[in-house]
Amino acid sequence: MAVGREMRWWGWGEDDHASSPPAHGVAWVEGRLGAPLGPSTRPPALETVQLPGTRLKRRAAAALRDLVGDEAVREDPHARIVHAAGKGYPDLIRLRTGDARPAPDAVVLPGDRAQVGAVLALCAEAGIAVVPFGGGTSVVGGVEPLRGGLDAVVALDLGRLTRMLALDVRSRLATFEPGLRGPEVEHLLRGRGYTLGHFPQSFEYSTVGGWVATRSAGQASTGYGRIDRVVAGATLTAPAGEIALAARPASAAGPDLRELVVGSEGVLGVLTDVTLKVRPRPASGIYEGWMLPSFDAGAAALREIVQSGVAPDVTRLSDEHETEMSLALAGLKGAKAAISGSYMRARGVAGGSLAIFGWEGDPDAVTRRRRATTAVLARHGGATLGTSPGRAWARGRFHAPYLRDDLLGRGVLVETLETAGTWSGLERLYRGVRAALETHAPFVACHISHVYTDGASLYFTFLAPMERADPIGQWSAVKHAACEAIVACGGTITHHHSIGRDHARYLPAEDGALGVAALRAVKATLDPAGIMNPGKLLPTSSA
Amino acid sequence: MAVGREMRWWGWGEDDHASSPPAHGVAWVEGRLGAPLGPSTRPPALETVQLPGTRLKRRAAAALRDLVGDEAVREDPHARIVHAAGKGYPDLIRLRTGDARPAPDAVVLPGDRAQVGAVLALCAEAGIAVVPFGGGTSVVGGVEPLRGGLDAVVALDLGRLTRMLALDVRSRLATFEPGLRGPEVEHLLRGRGYTLGHFPQSFEYSTVGGWVATRSAGQASTGYGRIDRVVAGATLTAPAGEIALAARPASAAGPDLRELVVGSEGVLGVLTDVTLKVRPRPASGIYEGWMLPSFDAGAAALREIVQSGVAPDVTRLSDEHETEMSLALAGLKGAKAAISGSYMRARGVAGGSLAIFGWEGDPDAVTRRRRATTAVLARHGGATLGTSPGRAWARGRFHAPYLRDDLLGRGVLVETLETAGTWSGLERLYRGVRAALETHAPFVACHISHVYTDGASLYFTFLAPMERADPIGQWSAVKHAACEAIVACGGTITHHHSIGRDHARYLPAEDGALGVAALRAVKATLDPAGIMNPGKLLPTSSA
Repeated sequence: MAVGREMRWWGWGEDDHASSPPAHGVAWVEGRLGAPLGPSTRPPALETVQLPGTRLKRRAAAALRDLVGDEAVREDPHARIVHAAGKGYPDLIRLRTGDARPAPDAVVLPGDRAQVGAVLALCAEAGIAVVPFGGGTSVVGGVEPLRGGLDAVVALDLGRLTRMLALDVRSRLATFEPGLRGPEVEHLLRGRGYTLGHFPQSFEYSTVGGWVATRSAGQASTGYGRIDRVVAGATLTAPAGEIALAARPASAAGPDLRELVVGSEGVLGVLTDVTLKVRPRPASGIYEGWMLPSFDAGAAALREIVQSGVAPDVTRLSDEHETEMSLALAGLKGAKAAISGSYMRARGVAGGSLAIFGWEGDPDAVTRRRRATTAVLARHGGATLGTSPGRAWARGRFHAPYLRDDLLGRGVLVETLETAGTWSGLERLYRGVRAALETHAPFVACHISHVYTDGASLYFTFLAPMERADPIGQWSAVKHAACEAIVACGGTITHHHSIGRDHARYLPAEDGALGVAALRAVKATLDPAGIMNPGKLLPTSSA
Repeated sequence: MAVGREMRWWGWGEDDHASSPPAHGVAWVEGRLGAPLGPSTRPPALETVQLPGTRLKRRAAAALRDLVGDEAVREDPHARIVHAAGKGYPDLIRLRTGDARPAPDAVVLPGDRAQVGAVLALCAEAGIAVVPFGGGTSVVGGVEPLRGGLDAVVALDLGRLTRMLALDVRSRLATFEPGLRGPEVEHLLRGRGYTLGHFPQSFEYSTVGGWVATRSAGQASTGYGRIDRVVAGATLTAPAGEIALAARPASAAGPDLRELVVGSEGVLGVLTDVTLKVRPRPASGIYEGWMLPSFDAGAAALREIVQSGVAPDVTRLSDEHETEMSLALAGLKGAKAAISGSYMRARGVAGGSLAIFGWEGDPDAVTRRRRATTAVLARHGGATLGTSPGRAWARGRFHAPYLRDDLLGRGVLVETLETAGTWSGLERLYRGVRAALETHAPFVACHISHVYTDGASLYFTFLAPMERADPIGQWSAVKHAACEAIVACGGTITHHHSIGRDHARYLPAEDGALGVAALRAVKATLDPAGIMNPGKLLPTSSA
């Protein structure tokens, strides 16, 4: 039984999508790192990967096969290695050294909700840890097959749950099984004239269930809304039973349990269906580049734009460093041409901050909203670069992870992390995280990609020469320095990527010790045997 | 120590605001009920009200006085009777018969968050139930001083916690203590050029903490957002400690605990501050009346309007019955004149459905949005009534509870209840609840007051001759018939009024048994002694 369209086990995407920076980009990276890039390293052959024997008892394996069918319980090395990790930097470092030792003992592929429930019941009875697995794209260790003190662990691959269960056109609600990937979701909706408008960078491989479980933000979420604003209903299948939350436009009926299952990251149960707000496909769309004199000026403009209620659907502002990187690496020819032109130099915006804006909808509304944004940008010293940088960004919008893999293979520590804060605290947050990263990495870039009336997100990318003796130790030092700066500066520990394994120790900073205790109490009720996704979201006592 | 600006203990508002329907309105009610209204009854004198002796132990009373000051622990009959009930129909029936037996043993008025925490700790230790009390405007029994098996119960009046703690203009966030009433919130913001835009019908007396605790909807919430969409941060002071949730524009950090404290109705702890999104005061505003050929046609128009993204901030559509009642009772002179005119008759909309729309903001945006709505309404057969019915509605927007009291005093069962559902289920929900009410009440009216892309609210008002032998039994029968119809037709059990005492038995229909178990687990963590607002939100085992 196939496990969906699979990414290569040691990196992002599929082989024919691989990507290298252009020659001038390699030179730019080498200049910034002060060191030459190494040759591209190839990962080891699958056959040579270290993989311990399965610890799943034969009786349990047989019982699982009875529930879901023989072909839906896979214990072969390929299936286990594909489910051994997500796509975070430490995950890929480990896999590329041929180490898949945390691999699950088996991969179980239930065919419907009832089978999910039966598998969870069996695993609770037998003491088998269960790691829900959608697209496997977590960059925070969210699908790491940790055992949590249990003997065995299985990956619960949701790749067979791929139906659109309902499309309520009148209410603009679509109900999906969790295993549908981004392009499949949009394909199903497009056939009926609708769109979800949710495009995280992982769009090609991540799943609709994973988006809800990780409280995902898409590139157009400033306009279409984060997934938590788009969820109308959901069913959580937990070891203790089911919570079926019907779609409701709004309610005053106590705490909203939707917001408890959104972001639950597999530790409370498995999302077996989700009902999301959809929209008619936009009649028109336009993407445009702008150059702002500085990141500060751009941020001030974005604040004014969103607070006046006319934010573009895609709103993205790079700081001066990311602007430099984008031009060097991504080859935004249109932008480069415009910036080097005498027109731009005359306006004094060369070396400034690149912004991308996208508007979608009926042409009149797009024109009106674009005009309102243009007026604010002009007042803040912005100059338009026209649509070609916008089109270039849209073409390459899912491209960065491929580029990361290439650099990683040439000996570069390349990682991203993100936060969000209120407008009044944003500059301090930006400077604090940047300072923490700069003590470890010679190049640090940042962009704002989501704006709200009360604040914005900050998304950092940083590069350093990889310390080959201990690359994961190197990564851990810089990662935690940045996280501590985020907490100290009052940001949220994550705006895009979720908590997973890597941020769990910071959850108390977000929710307080008593808030974490409340979440643990919920978990103890829904998952009394503690089998669901051990070591994720909630800090382990040793952390 | 004063307990804030107090409503009369036996009814809504203050004496000088009392209101009777006009003579033609009385005749209309009598015609609809098929029975003459009785004379207005006066409530009994405060001194004659039945009030049991306090069961608060002297040692506990002394300890409470040590914590908050002598004058901030009140055991006098007046204070206890004022805190004996909310303003629901059964509450008022009971009080007007001189029965205040569920009165709290004492009223405690903490002066700050630390005192709230200390009072909760003391009560947890001494086994004293605590009922948080903001404006006391609950119409679902949310402040009923139930003991939950404990010996004593105190009302925790938040009337001394009335500061605006911060106004972050840059982030458009204001932080309030919980005890501020609606007019005080708006007054504090107006002085700085801002508004919250939250205007529930209880606005004059309800508090900002109460709004958050009950997941409140305001009359302009279609535009400004329900309180749950406006909350950015909050602090919950619970017997087990505090959960301080800093304002965050958005986050991917697991389940959103804001949505656990919003709507927690005092059963988890006390909201000791709330941080809300505010907006600049609108530069202009316009309210307008429309007549639609039918409720169905109006609902279809509202759906089209909200789904095209141009919903007015106030969007309100009465069914044909409520239209009749509004014209008979409220004396909307402008609307009546327009409807009786030959113009309206010629358009065939006499006897139709009255709608009120309100737009606020900068004049250009108001004009544009109003034009878009007008086009849709015209396409659905609507005819404008101009601004005078809109102004009349805005003048009387907080008026209905006074009118209810007058009718109640003349022997009329007058009650409201509300729900919300998806657009595709709305007609069935409307017809189902109407049918359930009509088996008990000769007159049933309804309006839509909140619209969403995926659905709308339904707010029912019904009248029946009061059964004097057992008015609460009569109320209970019709109330529960309606609630069962709501559940059967897939609506939420409450969109405006919250769960409180009256809807607690329906929470499992909303959240499932396992969802309720999860909430109980949260409560056991935050309130291990079970002192917080017994008998509210969570169904009691006997229910």
